[in-house]
Amino acid sequence: MADPNPVDNSEQPNGLSKSELKKRAKAAEKEKKAAERAVKQAELAQQQAAAEDFAKGFYGALPLNQSQSRPRRERSQISTLSSRDGETVLIRARLQTSRAQGNKLVFLNLRQRTHSVQAVLAVKAEKISKQMVKWASSLADESIVLVEGVIQQSPIPIQGASVSDVELHVQQLHLVAGIDGRLPFSLDDASRPDVEIEQSETQLNRVLLDTRLNNRVVDLRTQTNQAVFKLQAAIGDLFRDYLSINGFIEIHSPKLQGAATESGASVFKVSYFKGTAYLAQSPQLAKQMAIAADFERVYEIGPVFRAEDSNTHRHLTEFIGLDLEMTIEEHYHEVMELLDGLFLSIFRGLKEKYQHEIETVGRQFPADEFKWREGPEGTLRLTHREAVQMLVDDGVEIGPTEDMNTENERRLGRLIKAKYDTDYFIIDKFPMEIRPFYTMPDPEDPTVSNSYDFFMRGEEILSGAQRIHEPKLLAEKMRSKGVDPESMKGYIDAFRMGCAPHGGGGIGLERVVMLFLKLNNIRRASLFPRDPKRLEP
Amino acid sequence: MADPNPVDNSEQPNGLSKSELKKRAKAAEKEKKAAERAVKQAELAQQQAAAEDFAKGFYGALPLNQSQSRPRRERSQISTLSSRDGETVLIRARLQTSRAQGNKLVFLNLRQRTHSVQAVLAVKAEKISKQMVKWASSLADESIVLVEGVIQQSPIPIQGASVSDVELHVQQLHLVAGIDGRLPFSLDDASRPDVEIEQSETQLNRVLLDTRLNNRVVDLRTQTNQAVFKLQAAIGDLFRDYLSINGFIEIHSPKLQGAATESGASVFKVSYFKGTAYLAQSPQLAKQMAIAADFERVYEIGPVFRAEDSNTHRHLTEFIGLDLEMTIEEHYHEVMELLDGLFLSIFRGLKEKYQHEIETVGRQFPADEFKWREGPEGTLRLTHREAVQMLVDDGVEIGPTEDMNTENERRLGRLIKAKYDTDYFIIDKFPMEIRPFYTMPDPEDPTVSNSYDFFMRGEEILSGAQRIHEPKLLAEKMRSKGVDPESMKGYIDAFRMGCAPHGGGGIGLERVVMLFLKLNNIRRASLFPRDPKRLEP
Repeated sequence: MADPNPVDNSEQPNGLSKSELKKRAKAAEKEKKAAERAVKQAELAQQQAAAEDFAKGFYGALPLNQSQSRPRRERSQISTLSSRDGETVLIRARLQTSRAQGNKLVFLNLRQRTHSVQAVLAVKAEKISKQMVKWASSLADESIVLVEGVIQQSPIPIQGASVSDVELHVQQLHLVAGIDGRLPFSLDDASRPDVEIEQSETQLNRVLLDTRLNNRVVDLRTQTNQAVFKLQAAIGDLFRDYLSINGFIEIHSPKLQGAATESGASVFKVSYFKGTAYLAQSPQLAKQMAIAADFERVYEIGPVFRAEDSNTHRHLTEFIGLDLEMTIEEHYHEVMELLDGLFLSIFRGLKEKYQHEIETVGRQFPADEFKWREGPEGTLRLTHREAVQMLVDDGVEIGPTEDMNTENERRLGRLIKAKYDTDYFIIDKFPMEIRPFYTMPDPEDPTVSNSYDFFMRGEEILSGAQRIHEPKLLAEKMRSKGVDPESMKGYIDAFRMGCAPHGGGGIGLERVVMLFLKLNNIRRASLFPRDPKRLEP
Repeated sequence: MADPNPVDNSEQPNGLSKSELKKRAKAAEKEKKAAERAVKQAELAQQQAAAEDFAKGFYGALPLNQSQSRPRRERSQISTLSSRDGETVLIRARLQTSRAQGNKLVFLNLRQRTHSVQAVLAVKAEKISKQMVKWASSLADESIVLVEGVIQQSPIPIQGASVSDVELHVQQLHLVAGIDGRLPFSLDDASRPDVEIEQSETQLNRVLLDTRLNNRVVDLRTQTNQAVFKLQAAIGDLFRDYLSINGFIEIHSPKLQGAATESGASVFKVSYFKGTAYLAQSPQLAKQMAIAADFERVYEIGPVFRAEDSNTHRHLTEFIGLDLEMTIEEHYHEVMELLDGLFLSIFRGLKEKYQHEIETVGRQFPADEFKWREGPEGTLRLTHREAVQMLVDDGVEIGPTEDMNTENERRLGRLIKAKYDTDYFIIDKFPMEIRPFYTMPDPEDPTVSNSYDFFMRGEEILSGAQRIHEPKLLAEKMRSKGVDPESMKGYIDAFRMGCAPHGGGGIGLERVVMLFLKLNNIRRASLFPRDPKRLEP
């Protein structure tokens, strides 16, 4: 073993030339730089490894199809986070926006349907690296993330989140699904009320209805739209519940018809093998046939097709009909009153159980609360004659048996709102000549019919009547309206085999949603609306 | 005043000739006969007046539209009459048949939906005349009548009525609606089980399915059909109730599509103004887009259109799809298990709450009770590989990735019934190559997919899977199945904007009804069925 002390020798540059000394200094400098580089590389490798470790356990993309293991870890709903200070929760949510502060802190706005919460990811020694924060900041808006975090009380109410008393301190963050391309518009822009855009001094983006509908999947994610379609579903549920309690059963009638029924004009033609079929304009005939078949009280919820080339705010070529038909024991007002009870039950149900959704929609579409009459006086009912008289008294030129156009209906709605303080009313006893051939005439005055319309905010939302169940009278009325009874033989035959007196009505689901919430355009109340110009998406 | 005793004189024919006497006798005879005729006429007039009086108050046709007064007299349901001896009730019902005994008594079989009762009308001094009984006997079968009567305990159980312990003693009888023409078949004939016709020694009428469907309004009145459609509605209710409890909301997606989706082959074309639309073959794309739009858990009940020219016992061109789609947290079995829970909830609900209807159908369509496994072992689940192996072991020549045809499915159903005593089971992990392009591959073995079918009595009633939510993989799978991704741009775009992992399934409502009740033909489970040859009624 040699004695290891040659260092002293080398440190004494005895008898070396100046150029030799410079050479040695340069080499030393080079070595120092290489060593520094090596250190840096090692540091980077270490950081990389740390980041990869973290990715394995703490963040990064989840496996595509997830279905590899099933630890059954409970997921929480954002709507339930309030007042749960200190709890650790696991949440899958949309990242609506992220906002980095420096390189150590990022705020994430997380959204689930009509609820949102603020999450915070901050650098923390040995737990959360700068890389993690940087990665989180780089996630695209509308990515879907899985977040584990601790709920913490916020000292001040949090703006811009529906849960305002707590925030989520992120411990783990995974990407569940990313975005491929650019969002057509931001959810913030899509959620803004028009009035805010109009009153703002800065240039705020307005997302036009057509742009929304072209990108409906993104548009539907706004809290407003989540609430609109929860309310649409609620109306269907309330409709069914009321009718089920009242002894109705649900039927499903065919949409493919062998003949163009009701009126020949506005029906879609279908190529049916070697022949032709037509899309049902309503379940009118089928539900009456169900009555002739003894079902007593039936309802149907299903699509209705109208080939009318009109692009108004209130027409769709395909919409959902809420239809019902029932036998009459003594008087057609049994039907009208059941329908009134149905509407009241829907209005009350929405008000009692869906206040959160109504308020959510109201933030983007401000509207006076929908009003109806409660108590012993009940729903306002006018005869058609009285309604026309109100218009005449207000200066409108309209004949006693004339149909009201949309403008006059709205005017009547305003007159009634001013006089009776209600957004909901019934008009009874329409003139026979402006109703379909299957409408039953009044027993005392055959120029008047046993028929009624229901109105919300000055627009018709239900049309109904007692129907003619006697085949000879039905054929006679058909002929008087220019319909050949032979063309609807199956329908008339149903009544030849004996049918109880009956009546009913049909409601447009999207119209009820639009008018209750004052959305101003029926397309907003349809998931993927169809009009003469729109068949996509 | 003359003394009025000339009678004695006339009784003494003093001094009159024999011929004169004969003349007088003849005249007397004539007078006597005239008097007798007058008496008879007076009697007849009296009877007629009595009958008319009775008609005004007690029987005769009700006014056509009824809506003249509203005494609000309570009507009773036949189903509630048992054990109500002594009560007077008012009932509107069909007169299924009447049977006169002599001219003083008539038995009426009254029917409401799935219930019937025997009514008796008998001559009773000063209350019920022979004419009344005659009139009642003359009413056509299937007339609708309004009956007031007293419930009376029957000493012996009444055959041929669902209420067998009491009968109704008629006091008043009105005709609500008559029959115009001849019934296509009697309800008795239409309600008879095939086995009864085959075993009978006398010639009993068999009503063929086509005759029934041509006269569906009359056919639907049988107690069997009333029960079938009550059960159909019940399945819809149970479906919704279970999903609603599990956080689903109902959506309505458009049936009019801008492009022929899924596969181009079997879709109906619609003339849409100046262009073309297509009828949706399923809500598959729309419900997936609803998931991409954050609805999390959605279901839809609506018509589904298939332009397949097949006239089998289990295909319709239009049927009702019960569809659902939900996000996945960890594993696609979450969906499969939810669907299993849904079916169990439907089976249990039917068994618990609709026994009367199941038994009613069973009288015309005898079937082994539908069996499923309860308890900790749960529903039988096999992989596709295991199912194929069972068939191979039974001697069937079938490859491991081959699709099972209807015959093999039924055979598998029989093998499983024999081995596991269940009519309901799940097959999981279908080969990738026999599933649609949107099916998610298995994470470990890409030749297998995360997909499943559910079976009832050896027929597939649900097909479902985890779907591909990643747009690049989706486009790749489309191309590999020969579908141009550009042709479904709106659909793929939905996933580009970020979509959670998800899965679902679709159920054919009419198939569930048919298989649960063993109706043997799907047309019996559809109110007004549509197939390549039938668009009416």
